[in-house]
Amino acid sequence: MIDRGRLEAFSDGVFAVAITLLALNLAVKGPPDEINGTLAYQLGHQWAAYAAYLISFFTVGIIWVNHHILVSNIVVVTRMLLFLNLVLLLFVVLIPVATGTVGDYLPKGGFDAKLAVAVYGIVLTGMSVGFSSIAEWSLGEGRTRVPVPPDRRWAARIRFMSGGLVYLVIVGLAFISAPAALGLSGLVAVYYVFERTPTLGKIADSASDQDTPS
Amino acid sequence: MIDRGRLEAFSDGVFAVAITLLALNLAVKGPPDEINGTLAYQLGHQWAAYAAYLISFFTVGIIWVNHHILVSNIVVVTRMLLFLNLVLLLFVVLIPVATGTVGDYLPKGGFDAKLAVAVYGIVLTGMSVGFSSIAEWSLGEGRTRVPVPPDRRWAARIRFMSGGLVYLVIVGLAFISAPAALGLSGLVAVYYVFERTPTLGKIADSASDQDTPS
Amino acid sequence: MIDRGRLEAFSDGVFAVAITLLALNLAVKGPPDEINGTLAYQLGHQWAAYAAYLISFFTVGIIWVNHHILVSNIVVVTRMLLFLNLVLLLFVVLIPVATGTVGDYLPKGGFDAKLAVAVYGIVLTGMSVGFSSIAEWSLGEGRTRVPVPPDRRWAARIRFMSGGLVYLVIVGLAFISAPAALGLSGLVAVYYVFERTPTLGKIADSASDQDTPS
Amino acid sequence: MIDRGRLEAFSDGVFAVAITLLALNLAVKGPPDEINGTLAYQLGHQWAAYAAYLISFFTVGIIWVNHHILVSNIVVVTRMLLFLNLVLLLFVVLIPVATGTVGDYLPKGGFDAKLAVAVYGIVLTGMSVGFSSIAEWSLGEGRTRVPVPPDRRWAARIRFMSGGLVYLVIVGLAFISAPAALGLSGLVAVYYVFERTPTLGKIADSASDQDTPS
Repeated sequence: MIDRGRLEAFSDGVFAVAITLLALNLAVKGPPDEINGTLAYQLGHQWAAYAAYLISFFTVGIIWVNHHILVSNIVVVTRMLLFLNLVLLLFVVLIPVATGTVGDYLPKGGFDAKLAVAVYGIVLTGMSVGFSSIAEWSLGEGRTRVPVPPDRRWAARIRFMSGGLVYLVIVGLAFISAPAALGLSGLVAVYYVFERTPTLGKIADSASDQDTPS
Repeated sequence: MIDRGRLEAFSDGVFAVAITLLALNLAVKGPPDEINGTLAYQLGHQWAAYAAYLISFFTVGIIWVNHHILVSNIVVVTRMLLFLNLVLLLFVVLIPVATGTVGDYLPKGGFDAKLAVAVYGIVLTGMSVGFSSIAEWSLGEGRTRVPVPPDRRWAARIRFMSGGLVYLVIVGLAFISAPAALGLSGLVAVYYVFERTPTLGKIADSASDQDTPS
Repeated sequence: MIDRGRLEAFSDGVFAVAITLLALNLAVKGPPDEINGTLAYQLGHQWAAYAAYLISFFTVGIIWVNHHILVSNIVVVTRMLLFLNLVLLLFVVLIPVATGTVGDYLPKGGFDAKLAVAVYGIVLTGMSVGFSSIAEWSLGEGRTRVPVPPDRRWAARIRFMSGGLVYLVIVGLAFISAPAALGLSGLVAVYYVFERTPTLGKIADSASDQDTPS
Repeated sequence: MIDRGRLEAFSDGVFAVAITLLALNLAVKGPPDEINGTLAYQLGHQWAAYAAYLISFFTVGIIWVNHHILVSNIVVVTRMLLFLNLVLLLFVVLIPVATGTVGDYLPKGGFDAKLAVAVYGIVLTGMSVGFSSIAEWSLGEGRTRVPVPPDRRWAARIRFMSGGLVYLVIVGLAFISAPAALGLSGLVAVYYVFERTPTLGKIADSASDQDTPS
């Protein structure tokens, strides 16, 4: 049987590689020629790439944190869980590519800029669906160390699904205003950085042996 | 001596990097010019890359799952096992490259499309041979925690070799119909996602300390 | 709750990928044509890339060592610590890209060469700020296994902040002399390789169960 | 203090990324145009890349195996050991780049083909020097679980240094015959795959709790 440690190690590896590849999108073209322009020119025109990099970096970082809070509470690892985890990772590894596309096309404006941010929103939505599926699966009988009481399951569901809904809104908003849609994805990241604990995590926390000051 | 944990950690790392690199094949070219076309045009013409990405992602994911079910049952780590594991990884790391070639050449049709899928099939066949060699090795006396009984060894062998045979068929089929051959590799992935447990895994499962509901 | 082991595993993964990607900056262009010149010509003109590679490799390596000395002393992992760690990694993963830019632009001279090294200095400064934030956080009550005595906290602060100050100097120096600024970042790396133990590390060392000869 | 597990995890990550990046050298160019030629043409002209890939893959794999046999016997982790380990990794991560250069330039013949293989030999020599330094360090008093008896130290030294000498020969041989020099590096890899155990490893083996049949 696959134990939880293995699932975590593999997922950690994928998260680590994906978050590191994000930075490659900021690479400038080689020495100046008539097409690329000077380094100063290139750096000055990468504002969309910087914004997308920052948003994606913290989005992946937060998903990594929440993934572990969720998984650390799971006591059985089934094939179904492994499959749901693969669905999550399927979208996580697409984030560097989608981020690069936003950085390339957003400054150009027009339909392609909107499409680039919409694709970015679709990837984040998919990631959120993958995460919610794991959370939903974990609500099943006997699957977590500290089970969520039945009367609180809907509250938990609403909580972890709301992120996905906002990402869906981003997909639509992108076709109205691409920069606004990207900005909204940044706000989601900021929100999750400061949000103390998701419902499922709070329960897991209270069951942990160590205190968490601050 | 190399312990099993080390073998698993290294293999996990390779699987994680390979599965993440898969996504890089979906990267679109930079801002539109007369050669690349618009983003919408590029995204619309990547159907082969999307299909190949999905199939390869789940194929690598499944091999990772089966690799760990197999290895977790092994009690001694010899140089021969490490070597066989390297042969498996030799083909696993080729999957992103072969997947990219399928995405690039399949939409063009002609002989190159067939050749691209055939090469993809060869890489998957090699991966399957590597996996089967480890499984075969694990049938030896005293090498696994829960040995496979002698009268069930041929059943086990047939089972883990059948995947390799289907991949060989894909190599041949590619020269008749490249899309059909790629589709067959997708069916293999779907089959393995839903297949409950391989013979060797089932035995390992029954020896594990924890229950696996679902 | 996220345990320390998870934080370390994820950070290790990011450090390992970032340090490996550094080498890709040394890749030469394909077979000779009138633009790239011969292999001998290319290798001979990569001196800046070699220097930047060496400096960045040991800089990342040293930060990895110091990160673990610091983190191994921490007993509670809070969301704030995870966030500060993400800030550190945000800059660590930028190092390969910034190193590549130095290698490409430094030999060209002019303003772009200065800008390239200044950007490199900014990334190293950011990394240092991230590291100092974690160190500062660890000075809080009950957060470390072996607390730093109150009367020694300012000494510790000055120590781990001095690296950041030198990197800031490099940013400014880059606009006067780009090679001198790069050279200074190399001296910082050499200094940290030979420096026995940072203040916080020394305390952690004395609490460890094993002796460290040499 | 850094414990051995951390050193191994970081090194494992670097080895895993480096061995996976090797495969990227086999990527063919996109759909056929007048410059790249057909897929069949490209695949047929990559023989040097295939050979270099195979040799490098097993070389890195073997070094990974030997690294762990060596490190698993070490009981104290000092800053000096971490530094020597970084020197080893400095060359390990260069192997994918050097392998790609061999694949690109060897088929072209002439001085650049010789230079490409010589550079490859220099990288392997550096890796070997890094490995030998760790082995030499481990001969010091009280640094290994099972110390090498004083009268056998020179035998051990000769053994782990002989690999480096062969790699030095490869550097020289490259300027006489590039294919012969590459072939010799392949023979070294084959030799190490089949060699039962290096001197230091044998001693570590005999102290391990488990039997190693085969």
